[in-house]
Amino acid sequence: MSERLSYVGKRLARPDIAAKVTGRAVYTADVALPGLLQGRILGSPHPHAKIGNIDTTRARALPGVVAVITHADVPSDKFTRSTLAEAMPDFAFAGERLDQTILTSRARYVGDWVAAVAAEDIYVAEKALALIEVEYEPLPAVFDPRAALRPDAPLVHDDAPGNVAQRMEFPFNAGDTAQALAEADVTVEFFGVSSRQKHIHLETDAAVAWFDADGRLTVISPSQGPHLAKRQVARRIFRDIDESKIHWISPAIGGGFGARLALGVEPAAIALARAAGRPVRVTTTREEDFSGYSSRTDHHQTVRLGAKSDGTLTAIDYRIVADSGAYFSHSGSTTAVNIQMTLGTFQVPNRYGQFTIAYTNTPTTSGFRGYGNAEGAFVLQQAIDILAEKLDIDPVEIRLKNIQKSGDPSCLPPVPVEHTRLDECLRRGAERFGWTEKWCGWGRCKTGRHRRGVGVSAITHSSGAGGFLLETSNASIKLGADGSASLFVSPCEMGQGILGALTQVAAESSGLSREAIHVVTGDTDITPFDLGSHASRSMLVVGNAVADAGAKIKHQIRERAVPLFALRQIKAEPSEIEVREGRVFLFDRQDVGFDLRDVAEAAIFNFADRSEQIAATGAYSAHSHHPNHQAAFAEVEVDTHTGAVKVIEYLAAHDIGRAINPQLVEGQIEGGAIQGLGFALTEDFVIDPDTGVVLSNSLQTYRVPTANDIPEVETILVEDPYAGGPFGAKGVGEAGIVNPAPAIANAIYDAIGVRMTSLPMSADKILYLLAEREKKSGVAPGASAVSGQSI
Amino acid sequence: MSERLSYVGKRLARPDIAAKVTGRAVYTADVALPGLLQGRILGSPHPHAKIGNIDTTRARALPGVVAVITHADVPSDKFTRSTLAEAMPDFAFAGERLDQTILTSRARYVGDWVAAVAAEDIYVAEKALALIEVEYEPLPAVFDPRAALRPDAPLVHDDAPGNVAQRMEFPFNAGDTAQALAEADVTVEFFGVSSRQKHIHLETDAAVAWFDADGRLTVISPSQGPHLAKRQVARRIFRDIDESKIHWISPAIGGGFGARLALGVEPAAIALARAAGRPVRVTTTREEDFSGYSSRTDHHQTVRLGAKSDGTLTAIDYRIVADSGAYFSHSGSTTAVNIQMTLGTFQVPNRYGQFTIAYTNTPTTSGFRGYGNAEGAFVLQQAIDILAEKLDIDPVEIRLKNIQKSGDPSCLPPVPVEHTRLDECLRRGAERFGWTEKWCGWGRCKTGRHRRGVGVSAITHSSGAGGFLLETSNASIKLGADGSASLFVSPCEMGQGILGALTQVAAESSGLSREAIHVVTGDTDITPFDLGSHASRSMLVVGNAVADAGAKIKHQIRERAVPLFALRQIKAEPSEIEVREGRVFLFDRQDVGFDLRDVAEAAIFNFADRSEQIAATGAYSAHSHHPNHQAAFAEVEVDTHTGAVKVIEYLAAHDIGRAINPQLVEGQIEGGAIQGLGFALTEDFVIDPDTGVVLSNSLQTYRVPTANDIPEVETILVEDPYAGGPFGAKGVGEAGIVNPAPAIANAIYDAIGVRMTSLPMSADKILYLLAEREKKSGVAPGASAVSGQSI
Repeated sequence: MSERLSYVGKRLARPDIAAKVTGRAVYTADVALPGLLQGRILGSPHPHAKIGNIDTTRARALPGVVAVITHADVPSDKFTRSTLAEAMPDFAFAGERLDQTILTSRARYVGDWVAAVAAEDIYVAEKALALIEVEYEPLPAVFDPRAALRPDAPLVHDDAPGNVAQRMEFPFNAGDTAQALAEADVTVEFFGVSSRQKHIHLETDAAVAWFDADGRLTVISPSQGPHLAKRQVARRIFRDIDESKIHWISPAIGGGFGARLALGVEPAAIALARAAGRPVRVTTTREEDFSGYSSRTDHHQTVRLGAKSDGTLTAIDYRIVADSGAYFSHSGSTTAVNIQMTLGTFQVPNRYGQFTIAYTNTPTTSGFRGYGNAEGAFVLQQAIDILAEKLDIDPVEIRLKNIQKSGDPSCLPPVPVEHTRLDECLRRGAERFGWTEKWCGWGRCKTGRHRRGVGVSAITHSSGAGGFLLETSNASIKLGADGSASLFVSPCEMGQGILGALTQVAAESSGLSREAIHVVTGDTDITPFDLGSHASRSMLVVGNAVADAGAKIKHQIRERAVPLFALRQIKAEPSEIEVREGRVFLFDRQDVGFDLRDVAEAAIFNFADRSEQIAATGAYSAHSHHPNHQAAFAEVEVDTHTGAVKVIEYLAAHDIGRAINPQLVEGQIEGGAIQGLGFALTEDFVIDPDTGVVLSNSLQTYRVPTANDIPEVETILVEDPYAGGPFGAKGVGEAGIVNPAPAIANAIYDAIGVRMTSLPMSADKILYLLAEREKKSGVAPGASAVSGQSI
Repeated sequence: MSERLSYVGKRLARPDIAAKVTGRAVYTADVALPGLLQGRILGSPHPHAKIGNIDTTRARALPGVVAVITHADVPSDKFTRSTLAEAMPDFAFAGERLDQTILTSRARYVGDWVAAVAAEDIYVAEKALALIEVEYEPLPAVFDPRAALRPDAPLVHDDAPGNVAQRMEFPFNAGDTAQALAEADVTVEFFGVSSRQKHIHLETDAAVAWFDADGRLTVISPSQGPHLAKRQVARRIFRDIDESKIHWISPAIGGGFGARLALGVEPAAIALARAAGRPVRVTTTREEDFSGYSSRTDHHQTVRLGAKSDGTLTAIDYRIVADSGAYFSHSGSTTAVNIQMTLGTFQVPNRYGQFTIAYTNTPTTSGFRGYGNAEGAFVLQQAIDILAEKLDIDPVEIRLKNIQKSGDPSCLPPVPVEHTRLDECLRRGAERFGWTEKWCGWGRCKTGRHRRGVGVSAITHSSGAGGFLLETSNASIKLGADGSASLFVSPCEMGQGILGALTQVAAESSGLSREAIHVVTGDTDITPFDLGSHASRSMLVVGNAVADAGAKIKHQIRERAVPLFALRQIKAEPSEIEVREGRVFLFDRQDVGFDLRDVAEAAIFNFADRSEQIAATGAYSAHSHHPNHQAAFAEVEVDTHTGAVKVIEYLAAHDIGRAINPQLVEGQIEGGAIQGLGFALTEDFVIDPDTGVVLSNSLQTYRVPTANDIPEVETILVEDPYAGGPFGAKGVGEAGIVNPAPAIANAIYDAIGVRMTSLPMSADKILYLLAEREKKSGVAPGASAVSGQSI
């Protein structure tokens, strides 16, 4: 690999940005089509109810209404919303559960889909919804996963006894954890609950669908994985539509964060398009997004750690009760990833993980950036601090002692931990943060109303889900006579800037000028197969495919340049020719060369000889999860009178391998940190425990961080090129959201001496804990100070 | 080449047909875009006028008007409308002439473009046109090319002295034609004029254009060659737009016939989009289409033949005066092709061709199916009959004696005539037609009011313009996990069915099932480089590229099938594996195999090993014009009282090499024959000789053949696979339109003994000629009975 890099490592502007900042990017809601109808969906007002007769007469009679459908009009095959399930081998340990239909004959949460309408405009569609008369027979409902697992709980699904959606032991458990815990010098047990964070993609869900005259189906939607979505629709939902007759387009996507890894309104749009015989766009409101089918899965997590007196971990036991909501979707895989990451952060010889997922009469949960890891880190990283406190070891030191090292056996055998610089992240982060200066030892120095504290968290995350599910990508490049090139990739650009980074890889590997590269993406007819964006995979997996295609393009350019050098009376072998930044020249005489456009033009406009466009396809498959790592440091100030937590400073050091575009990497880390701050402190998804109604159903009642809430986020890119990544790159998309909650929780503990066991760590909870501590004076601030979902 | 063919040779339905017959295909006029404006163009009411002040104040003030532009707002660089000019090498013998701007400061024909408007809707745009106040200073005008070439004629372009747009001798003239004519046993001279046939594409011209936020230009238009059009716009018209920033899409095209080889309203749409800062669609009416920039070029042609007494041709001298109309466009290349084809039909050792193209103050002419050949054949095929009559040789026999044979030197050296079965076309056609029975020798047997006659014509045409301009194509195929494949090609489907035929070639060459192949086409960002549709090229040139890609796909499938056979305990080398009709099996044990979908799925959903999508790109370059040939026979009945000509029977035998889809080949021949019938008999483009106004400006005043006018057209496909074509195929798109006029002219002569010298051969002309013959009794029916455009 050449170390002289032209584009890799540069802070170059993303190609998608101009359209987005000027409002000219075309999102699903902007798509214009002749004869396009507007579709809307009717949700159940009951959390649990049998549905009797549905009278659509009045709705159908409304002028402008073209189709009204109910459960009787949609396929009866059950499916899962999880698009990623299609990429899992049959032996996947977090298998799918097929448990829902497009429209239901039994409402299982408030908002569950009962009917849908397609009409000439959105106003008529809304009016028609109100005219549909549904007979509901209410059933008893359950809203809490632990309550749902009790024997007397009402059944959400008749074929899920005890409301158990899935129960599983981690297949790569190792050693004898019970014995190791019994033999440990010191043990810690900690319980914590994560919240149902909402993705808050600015674009609420929408889909356009229509059938061509020859029966071919086109779907336009903000899917994070159109190739898999197409497969899913054909194999799981509309089994009478052959997959080869489906065409899926992802246009501009207004944020994903994992939500678009599950199907949203697409199946309803397809069913309406079929019923109406015309194109239909289904849209949703922000309220429906909240009371719908997509949030982080809440995990009720208990971790037990065993260690030697020097702080060396010997055992970890990790158990989760998760709440899938009304339908399964991603809850299985997020919970499995939680276990994988939680057991895989530290090198522990004896490890045990298991989980139980319960159905409840609440909105369906789904995959969310961090994908279980953000949930698990909240408890694991507090538990390790509790252990450190017991042993009076510095929190940075105990992490450095126990984190996995390159070459260590990973928790996903057989591939070892291939490359980690988490140690360097911890060291450089601590130094820049001033850890030693700020840390005064377990909160003992804090007094007064406003108390500051510092906390650390150090995590691992994957760069793609290789070893867990199919991880593969393909990329094509074609070079036009004008010297411009199309790069065909399908990672799904949902705001992360991946398309820009991929053009840098394409330009670097091919020698094309980066300005010459235009990206074609998100269309299953056109773009080569790719899984889409998830698991921080795109840079490593898609990037490797792009680098493969780029290298082939460079090879072709070199060969085609030989006769052009000859025309200039220069004899050159392909191996003597370099291609860089849109210029072709001799390795040893860089002034001798010409514009790459000459090669591109001669390849096609070749009047004398064979003309042949320069084009190539590259591919890559991952069979490991190529971990990336991040350490983060937070300083907070807690107002002990109000309970308010202010983050003073936040610093994340990321083990990126190589930053293809440092600006985009920093953007991912900062964006993740801010979204993680919301997860940590303010974002509170509230379900009425009596009615199952989502109370936090707007951006006024559900508080995402604003500019006022967020500190300057500092980032350190720890760069040590990883041989398995394109130009050394590893992933970054998710790690940033994992650390904030535990780092802040540890900092809060440092500030005020109470352990936070549920998210968000809101002011009311802090005040409550401080008051409780006052009451039970004598309770040492520390392990298991409080526990339970009630906080 | 395997002779066991699964798809080639089959009458399979075209993939584009369902959308077209149901009205669901999206044409340029159907494209919907957010914020799309409607554009209209103001034409000059004067045939020749200087344009003074243009006051757009009132138009701009009209609510809803977003932009009004005039010549001051468009690039001043002059260009040619001919898109094909971009594919000509600098040494092309029919070079381009850059003589027009988007909007003009001097009107050169009635309808010449003076201003353009973009408005919120079409009604406002129309209204705004009427509010533009233009000061015209009328200039003297000239409407006839021979008048235009006189020294005293008004100059259409100041830089074209004598109104000579181009004057040229054919570069491959041979021998000493003057001497050979002087020494010939017998000579013939014949003069004939072709008409300005209109393409009558059902879709009138339209274009959509917009600039993205980052300045990238997208154009949607029914271009027959989007890759070249993009090049043309950047290199010739908007020189401030880099070609790499242009994206051109050809959606469904409502007929081309050569008209779309020239730019239409695209530059105006681009200029309006730039001025308006929004997407603009410019549309045209049928009236504007007639008085616009696109019809066949009228050729005034004189041919002299010299022959031995046995009928062997010894010399041909061929001279054309052509009328380009107000601007040059395709007139040079169509006239050059006329000479090429006319000199290349028969094997004549001494040949001389030259042409002069004149500017006139009439609408611009352009390329039209047949592209000069239909014009030339009208005189050559009558001249050869006149010669035959002089020597009393059967018209079929004299053609058989003189037509070029495989291996003969062609008139486009150095490549000889590679393959022709024109002799077989003549023989089989004559036999099926019953020539011997119907032919009674030079009209001598005809009496009575209704007289029947028969005529023959035998022509050559090219399969692509290799040797004349760049002829190259590229094609890509990608195979999805579901077994479906995208075929990326860009030949432009304008109704001819080429996409269907190409899927047959793709399926045959790759082994994929044809139903699995979906075509992606007509988008310069996406489809590999191709020139577009012209010169009957697509089947041979694009087809060869597709076959190349298909063979590569089959190779990959064979290699990937090896481990799948191994899983089934069968050891097989790639060379032992056949792929056909979507099935993979052993050559020698055809029952042992599996569905190709298994290979496609395993290539991508390969959890254990490297997964890599099956994909390939193929290419082809032509350096000869690969001639195809056709002989046609017509029987007519002339009503000597009314002059009406009824075609009783029409039979065309085509030298196709191999018919990839016989139904489509027949469709091309039949469609060509019917369009040729209109050219021959009814389609009359009339310009008022005093005002320059086009009088035939609707389908009521310009009569295309209807179902009542056309006989059953019989076709014979003479199949003898040509090694240079995909599965042996040669072209067919144009030949069908070339023969009708001369075959009918010869049949009319056989019926009533008068020679037709101008097109169309309308009833009034026939009555006039019959009356003239009565008057000048004693004039032998035969050579040069009448001449001149006045008929």
